[in-house]
Amino acid sequence: MENLFEFGAGILNAQPFSQLLGVKLVRFEPGKAEMAMEIDEKHKQQHGFVHGGVISYLADNCLTFAGGSVLGDSLTVEYKINYLKPAKGEKLIARGSVISSGKTQAVSECKIYSLNGNEEKLIAAAQGTIVSVKH
Amino acid sequence: MENLFEFGAGILNAQPFSQLLGVKLVRFEPGKAEMAMEIDEKHKQQHGFVHGGVISYLADNCLTFAGGSVLGDSLTVEYKINYLKPAKGEKLIARGSVISSGKTQAVSECKIYSLNGNEEKLIAAAQGTIVSVKH
Amino acid sequence: MENLFEFGAGILNAQPFSQLLGVKLVRFEPGKAEMAMEIDEKHKQQHGFVHGGVISYLADNCLTFAGGSVLGDSLTVEYKINYLKPAKGEKLIARGSVISSGKTQAVSECKIYSLNGNEEKLIAAAQGTIVSVKH
Amino acid sequence: MENLFEFGAGILNAQPFSQLLGVKLVRFEPGKAEMAMEIDEKHKQQHGFVHGGVISYLADNCLTFAGGSVLGDSLTVEYKINYLKPAKGEKLIARGSVISSGKTQAVSECKIYSLNGNEEKLIAAAQGTIVSVKH
Repeated sequence: MENLFEFGAGILNAQPFSQLLGVKLVRFEPGKAEMAMEIDEKHKQQHGFVHGGVISYLADNCLTFAGGSVLGDSLTVEYKINYLKPAKGEKLIARGSVISSGKTQAVSECKIYSLNGNEEKLIAAAQGTIVSVKH
Repeated sequence: MENLFEFGAGILNAQPFSQLLGVKLVRFEPGKAEMAMEIDEKHKQQHGFVHGGVISYLADNCLTFAGGSVLGDSLTVEYKINYLKPAKGEKLIARGSVISSGKTQAVSECKIYSLNGNEEKLIAAAQGTIVSVKH
Repeated sequence: MENLFEFGAGILNAQPFSQLLGVKLVRFEPGKAEMAMEIDEKHKQQHGFVHGGVISYLADNCLTFAGGSVLGDSLTVEYKINYLKPAKGEKLIARGSVISSGKTQAVSECKIYSLNGNEEKLIAAAQGTIVSVKH
Repeated sequence: MENLFEFGAGILNAQPFSQLLGVKLVRFEPGKAEMAMEIDEKHKQQHGFVHGGVISYLADNCLTFAGGSVLGDSLTVEYKINYLKPAKGEKLIARGSVISSGKTQAVSECKIYSLNGNEEKLIAAAQGTIVSVKH
């Protein structure tokens, strides 16, 4: 399990865009991935909320990592996201899980939460298709 | 038309996340929006391509702006994206258009292209729902 | 709860298309809806599996009913579906639940299962937006 | 071209569900598919409009046929649909086109129109991924 986590953290660290946004891998085990990001001024849109593009990035990446936890190095080929609440607070947490997988492809879902003090709120939900890079 | 473009550019400039990524409004008229972004190291993932999250951000924002060109200040409530080709080259261009609209809601579609020398390639396609902030 | 179930069953019975396909409401309570359909020759495509359009119909309807369990008479304005496995067997079961709701709008998700003997298999997953008819 | 049309019409005729709904292939050429369906009482929901599930079926099938026009026998693995207007009138027409394709996979989009007298109205838009059955 430690090796799997290191594999995942290594990929996240090798993504300049994830480093720019300040995202950390929290959990990575077969079929599950969790990421967290401290909310900062740079993540925002014109009304002071986290930009939808940041939430989308988190969804995309967490869907990929969930799929990658069973497929190895992977990428998201398509997904859909519903924004449910404005994203504000101290932190965003993305939790992804695989709902179906084969040898080269998986379907994952991801829920995104904002953390404000102790209150965790569901702010977005996504679903998408992940394929192995080697397929 | 100039006023509409200034309204759009003003919103884009008021988004810290869009400034962080270096996105510019190219065209903004009723039912249409176009944005461009020079590709930089910071936008990339572990294989040297533009991160899917950057493409998603562009799709999300361009869908919103297309909708906002007829609705005023708006946000995307949901969308879907298909990544079609790896994103590389010098520039990304997002072109959004409204396919249906009412008083407080619109549905937009967006195509994203990479520019490599003179070659423009379709790399992603998105479709989503936009609502007026005031509704 | 009995009244809510009767309200739901009444709407399903008032849908000629649902009657044509032979769909029954199994469960209907605040935030949850479940429907079932015996698989028949008429539901199939050219390879002998249930047609994707039948599965889509079930997803659409079950997403709407889940939303309608909290909103009243409703309709689905958009959704996305991933087909996970070929649909065959005796029966299809759709289970929908609300993941977020306001006064006039909800977001639901729906999983669709095939039943073959005693084996239940996840064959499709959907997510979409439902709005109240009166809003 | 005639052979391609016959190939498509043959598949549609081999789908019991498409026969149940009364759908006809109108156009089928590389990258394009068009289908039409006379609206009948059996297609409706509780408010007298065509059921969303029928529109979804048309989108699913037309996306698949568009993809199949370049890939051969195919199926839709995922798609997303936005319903834009209530569907009523005499006829529904679905027009699908491929926006990107490889050897075993394509991405298509589909617009669905209602025909009421001479008035054609855009009532739904869909986008999805199609894979070759043999891949």
